[in-house]
Amino acid sequence: MFNHKKELQFDAKPDRPDPVFAKKLQEVIGGQYGEMSVAMQYLFQGWNTRGNEQYKDLILDTGTEEIGHVEMLATMVARLLDKAPVQAQEEAAKDPVIGAVMGDMNPHHAIVSGIGAAPENSVGVPWNAGYIVSSGNLLADMRANLNAESQGRLQVARLYEMTDDRGVKELLSFLLARDTMHQNQWIAAIKELEAKEGVIVPSTVPADWEATEFSHQLINFSEGNDSEKLDFVGKQAPDGAANFEYVSNPVSHGEKPVLNPAPSYMHNTPPNEDKM
Amino acid sequence: MFNHKKELQFDAKPDRPDPVFAKKLQEVIGGQYGEMSVAMQYLFQGWNTRGNEQYKDLILDTGTEEIGHVEMLATMVARLLDKAPVQAQEEAAKDPVIGAVMGDMNPHHAIVSGIGAAPENSVGVPWNAGYIVSSGNLLADMRANLNAESQGRLQVARLYEMTDDRGVKELLSFLLARDTMHQNQWIAAIKELEAKEGVIVPSTVPADWEATEFSHQLINFSEGNDSEKLDFVGKQAPDGAANFEYVSNPVSHGEKPVLNPAPSYMHNTPPNEDKM
Amino acid sequence: MFNHKKELQFDAKPDRPDPVFAKKLQEVIGGQYGEMSVAMQYLFQGWNTRGNEQYKDLILDTGTEEIGHVEMLATMVARLLDKAPVQAQEEAAKDPVIGAVMGDMNPHHAIVSGIGAAPENSVGVPWNAGYIVSSGNLLADMRANLNAESQGRLQVARLYEMTDDRGVKELLSFLLARDTMHQNQWIAAIKELEAKEGVIVPSTVPADWEATEFSHQLINFSEGNDSEKLDFVGKQAPDGAANFEYVSNPVSHGEKPVLNPAPSYMHNTPPNEDKM
Amino acid sequence: MFNHKKELQFDAKPDRPDPVFAKKLQEVIGGQYGEMSVAMQYLFQGWNTRGNEQYKDLILDTGTEEIGHVEMLATMVARLLDKAPVQAQEEAAKDPVIGAVMGDMNPHHAIVSGIGAAPENSVGVPWNAGYIVSSGNLLADMRANLNAESQGRLQVARLYEMTDDRGVKELLSFLLARDTMHQNQWIAAIKELEAKEGVIVPSTVPADWEATEFSHQLINFSEGNDSEKLDFVGKQAPDGAANFEYVSNPVSHGEKPVLNPAPSYMHNTPPNEDKM
Amino acid sequence: MFNHKKELQFDAKPDRPDPVFAKKLQEVIGGQYGEMSVAMQYLFQGWNTRGNEQYKDLILDTGTEEIGHVEMLATMVARLLDKAPVQAQEEAAKDPVIGAVMGDMNPHHAIVSGIGAAPENSVGVPWNAGYIVSSGNLLADMRANLNAESQGRLQVARLYEMTDDRGVKELLSFLLARDTMHQNQWIAAIKELEAKEGVIVPSTVPADWEATEFSHQLINFSEGNDSEKLDFVGKQAPDGAANFEYVSNPVSHGEKPVLNPAPSYMHNTPPNEDKM
Amino acid sequence: MFNHKKELQFDAKPDRPDPVFAKKLQEVIGGQYGEMSVAMQYLFQGWNTRGNEQYKDLILDTGTEEIGHVEMLATMVARLLDKAPVQAQEEAAKDPVIGAVMGDMNPHHAIVSGIGAAPENSVGVPWNAGYIVSSGNLLADMRANLNAESQGRLQVARLYEMTDDRGVKELLSFLLARDTMHQNQWIAAIKELEAKEGVIVPSTVPADWEATEFSHQLINFSEGNDSEKLDFVGKQAPDGAANFEYVSNPVSHGEKPVLNPAPSYMHNTPPNEDKM
Repeated sequence: MFNHKKELQFDAKPDRPDPVFAKKLQEVIGGQYGEMSVAMQYLFQGWNTRGNEQYKDLILDTGTEEIGHVEMLATMVARLLDKAPVQAQEEAAKDPVIGAVMGDMNPHHAIVSGIGAAPENSVGVPWNAGYIVSSGNLLADMRANLNAESQGRLQVARLYEMTDDRGVKELLSFLLARDTMHQNQWIAAIKELEAKEGVIVPSTVPADWEATEFSHQLINFSEGNDSEKLDFVGKQAPDGAANFEYVSNPVSHGEKPVLNPAPSYMHNTPPNEDKM
Repeated sequence: MFNHKKELQFDAKPDRPDPVFAKKLQEVIGGQYGEMSVAMQYLFQGWNTRGNEQYKDLILDTGTEEIGHVEMLATMVARLLDKAPVQAQEEAAKDPVIGAVMGDMNPHHAIVSGIGAAPENSVGVPWNAGYIVSSGNLLADMRANLNAESQGRLQVARLYEMTDDRGVKELLSFLLARDTMHQNQWIAAIKELEAKEGVIVPSTVPADWEATEFSHQLINFSEGNDSEKLDFVGKQAPDGAANFEYVSNPVSHGEKPVLNPAPSYMHNTPPNEDKM
Repeated sequence: MFNHKKELQFDAKPDRPDPVFAKKLQEVIGGQYGEMSVAMQYLFQGWNTRGNEQYKDLILDTGTEEIGHVEMLATMVARLLDKAPVQAQEEAAKDPVIGAVMGDMNPHHAIVSGIGAAPENSVGVPWNAGYIVSSGNLLADMRANLNAESQGRLQVARLYEMTDDRGVKELLSFLLARDTMHQNQWIAAIKELEAKEGVIVPSTVPADWEATEFSHQLINFSEGNDSEKLDFVGKQAPDGAANFEYVSNPVSHGEKPVLNPAPSYMHNTPPNEDKM
Repeated sequence: MFNHKKELQFDAKPDRPDPVFAKKLQEVIGGQYGEMSVAMQYLFQGWNTRGNEQYKDLILDTGTEEIGHVEMLATMVARLLDKAPVQAQEEAAKDPVIGAVMGDMNPHHAIVSGIGAAPENSVGVPWNAGYIVSSGNLLADMRANLNAESQGRLQVARLYEMTDDRGVKELLSFLLARDTMHQNQWIAAIKELEAKEGVIVPSTVPADWEATEFSHQLINFSEGNDSEKLDFVGKQAPDGAANFEYVSNPVSHGEKPVLNPAPSYMHNTPPNEDKM
Repeated sequence: MFNHKKELQFDAKPDRPDPVFAKKLQEVIGGQYGEMSVAMQYLFQGWNTRGNEQYKDLILDTGTEEIGHVEMLATMVARLLDKAPVQAQEEAAKDPVIGAVMGDMNPHHAIVSGIGAAPENSVGVPWNAGYIVSSGNLLADMRANLNAESQGRLQVARLYEMTDDRGVKELLSFLLARDTMHQNQWIAAIKELEAKEGVIVPSTVPADWEATEFSHQLINFSEGNDSEKLDFVGKQAPDGAANFEYVSNPVSHGEKPVLNPAPSYMHNTPPNEDKM
Repeated sequence: MFNHKKELQFDAKPDRPDPVFAKKLQEVIGGQYGEMSVAMQYLFQGWNTRGNEQYKDLILDTGTEEIGHVEMLATMVARLLDKAPVQAQEEAAKDPVIGAVMGDMNPHHAIVSGIGAAPENSVGVPWNAGYIVSSGNLLADMRANLNAESQGRLQVARLYEMTDDRGVKELLSFLLARDTMHQNQWIAAIKELEAKEGVIVPSTVPADWEATEFSHQLINFSEGNDSEKLDFVGKQAPDGAANFEYVSNPVSHGEKPVLNPAPSYMHNTPPNEDKM
């Protein structure tokens, strides 16, 4: 069960409206690695966690915080859209600065959301749940989470470069910090889980299920052996089971596949036996 | 530039047709973490890599291999669909085993693809590029790759449980091994990059951009302090910059947001100043 | 800012596992009118509300509740998936009941989510934000909300018919009740807003913008005049501005459109002036 | 069966080309609440209507009209794209006005559709059927229809503000009028249906299916009791069954959910019994 | 402008309900090559046609017919869903035939559409406009149309194999015939256009824009020269400009790409100049 | 199995960066008819081909080449993005040329992909597999392929018009040539297959399955008989089975559909027998 506190977790007040930046900021609301993604990813992971109650609690706490991040960013977008110059005006059209703003806005901000935030990314594609994962395997999911916070903080850093507005930068500085924390916590949890289970996910695959002769081969699927110069080649692999082995030329371990002809009730092309 | 070799990387011959398992196997072809995803993710990452030529080579080699994995799985699906009982037959309808097969198949395998593999997941949703990422930041992307190989190997292990067919299991044993290798290699690369850059992505954010007072706080967004018992609480965070700090009760650092009224040309609800 | 309470708003314990019903229940989690939709729709509407603070509060309260509804349903799905018979077993394959369960499950529940809930609908299509709206116009959005709660309660009622499990029915009885409440509250709010603004959205369009001669015509775009027998034909329209007028035969008020030829730099088909 | 009349329902001739406005106008062709949505929504509702032949006729008439609205808007977009300055020209690049137009166009209008309309919204996202609903319940669907016409007319009004072109405004004035009519007719139909069935959808849920103690509670899921000041609190709810009851503090009626551990064949994280 | 005639173009009465076949039939309503696709594709093509009025008329006539095909199929689906066994029943669960039907239905048909047709394909994915094309080039689009009618008729033929219901087969026999006609008419139109313009689309590209030395090379991107045995190799190509030339080994005409390092404000991985 | 050669198939070096053109060029990477589409379409078709080994080889060769086309275009996009002016700069904002570039870029190129190519189209919609087809019927699929190469070459020609950059034009000249070749080869293959099978797909439908009285009727679904003037009307149809027959007025061969009332457990609107 959830509760709402009316105050924001952090301030979200730009120095001045900027509808063009509002469009860009949508990426960290409704993009692949925006706050909607981490909120939904963590909540589903938490709800699906079986046993491991402390991790479950950590994951749900973080997911709950992220809903509040969407809230801050949505508020910021709404304020950046204040006074958006959307009306047709003879003079405006002649002023290249105003004209550029009118063209560069996300049309949805004017036509659909009424100068409010939208659940979509910086090009206007709606958020979808194909971005997120909740697998039931904690180590796999913590890696998904570490990736999400890494991509997310990278995007925030790039947005920080794109604005001179101090109020916007202040909010972004808070998000940078929380993404640092969330990277830290997922790394810490990954270390704990790897210490117990080993580094290969899932840790529960019996050895005889796996064609282990291929488990440490770095196969060179290109001309030239540049990748052989990588430092880790020849050294022990992270799973500790063998050294990395370099295979210069990939070998086919299978045959050229020839499929049976389709049954006639499929209405595929009739086969031409003699020639093709 | 790419070249095709007609032999498969590994054998893909089931002991017998099984259209119901063919439907499930689609998940690792065209699902969120199927082989289409890793192939496309690695290729775009490789093509976009700037400098770091050895990593670029490694990433492109792996992406090239993954196209061949789609090929093996597509071939396997085509063979599992041989003799799919799709025709209406009075007797068949009365036989619950055949009836179940007819119902449990992916209808696309009969109606659309003509007993061939489809570029979609186990429920028939077409693959889309919103699943993948190529960010230009190698450490971020290696984490994405490690996650992808972890989720992918987990799904292969689950599919392994769901079949008794030795031919299918053999192909899956090969995929388990290659996913082990790919987890190993991305972990090795991550270690190298973290050793150089530190663990927080991106490593290039100046300290004064970040509200560092929030960078190590584990904030408890729920009733009860269970998450405080996590082993890493109070210890040094992975970035080495501070210890994890537990905050029992989240504090608002922002105000209750009150937005300006919309301009009349937005045609939002007219404000009712006196009461609401 | 949001807070999480570990107890559920209502119990979510089925009498027994039922993976086939778990698949169906996904519709009200991640379907077009599932709880993810109402949660996200209300939160974005609330965050974007300008003025009208009491409505803003009501909308955000309701959105916050709906996140907890996703939580209950996700928990229920996880429990319905307990002991899901996903392993291949010679005997199972021969038992039509177990066989049917294995075939009728959502494969994602086994392969992707590890017997946990997924952010998708009953056929496995991921939730997307194209389902929801936040327009900035309160009356328009309250109508969207009333529709969402009407469709949602209808789906819950249908699901209620499809199960004999008392635990599931109990949770559904709670959802039926909350959907009743939410229909009630949006109807009440709509009445208030219509009393102030009138019934046509948006209320702020000046009369001379509108071709009012067409504002009350029921135009019969089919052969036969059945629709003329509707009770409201000829009576005063809800906006009070005129009576409904029945137009038996639709009239074209425009011309046959003939477009200019494309410029040659478009590389469209070269025009064949003389004949076509 | 349908028939086409070559004349448009209303004129669609702009005073002059305007490729930037053409992009915006796409929202009401292929957006969430564009004319494709209402056309398809009404046609599917009509085809699925069982009994209630006069409503079926009304719905199909309206759906048929809406196809003609897509036609008018597509024609308008094609004309707005006449003479679109898509060619690279040294001088053009230096002229900020032409440069802005070239940048602000939807690239699809030049590259994909050959200066024709596209079945997509104002940011270029293709229309999809997840926008629409046909539920089989007339009251639910009439509410969906009223919402669609409200959102649609709101968007048309906003577009009206964004152009000075008299020809475009004339077409929009016609659409405003028809959206007024369609709001009027759906309100009239809703009143008729509510008079017969009551206001809660579906009306056919037996009383003992519903946990009616929760059917009139306005639960305050936030700090502070602002929402208690809403006029309707404490008064009779629209369903007439009880008064709205204000619940200041939400109460959990469920327990903290603890899920069973996953079976080993799921390959989830092995549980750590003693500690978590 | 469009008009609706209440009678169907052809009968749509199954001998008996069959909810499982209803699910499959959705493919030709809302699938990639279903009737929604051809209806929308032809209408947009027709509305966008510039000049060539007879083709415009033909295309719009055909698009108008296709809306009526959706209507027939939607009606058929609604009738196949009559008496769908969606209620939970102790006895039913034990009867494998009824049980199979309950499991194999599209859950949307019961939960969402109320035993009506849905605008989605046979696995429940909603129709989207990314399936269709209207390019402004008639020859290109006629080829798209011929492909659509070929894929569509193929799917109808496969569905014909999957049912024993005479009423369903009768409707399918009509669709087979109309798809034959539409293939015939697009082939005829393609021949006319090719006779005027030549076979390569677009016909308006000046010779000096094209690297014509590569315009007739069949490049063998695989080991072995099987494709050289194709009959047309060495013969005159359809454009009449040259003979097909077989290139056994693909040659790189470009260099190994080395990209410039990213600017620091992108926060990509810092380059490691000395080694990689 | 696939192999990668580090050299590009053709050069991909622009004369100078141009982030605005980079956005447009994405259409032929990740758009409906971009190189990702043809690569994936041909690979799946090839893998699914049963018998007809020479066609299978041709299709796979072409698919393999197309991956290399994505590579060239991705490299070109990366280079066009060099020095993208994404940073906020007081002076820049005042310079309309730089300002326009900042606004017209795809925000993903800066925020998400780090000045690299993205797997999406020119408006930023991610590529999805709903664009492609592999049906198992070679003639149907060759028509799909001819359409794809026709649309693709048309788009390349339009892009050629939109740039003055000689390096870009050079790459486009190569793509124009390869698209010419691919149109040539699919036309040649279509001719071979049509010679063997006839022109109607699928060729295997028995005559008595089809309502052949409708197989050659050009039905005029609009007022006026313009389409009767088409040259092919009255002449022999391409399938040689009959002449095209013109039907001026479409006739209903079916009845007005009246559906059975829904069962009460569907909770549709209760029927109002006496009046509607």
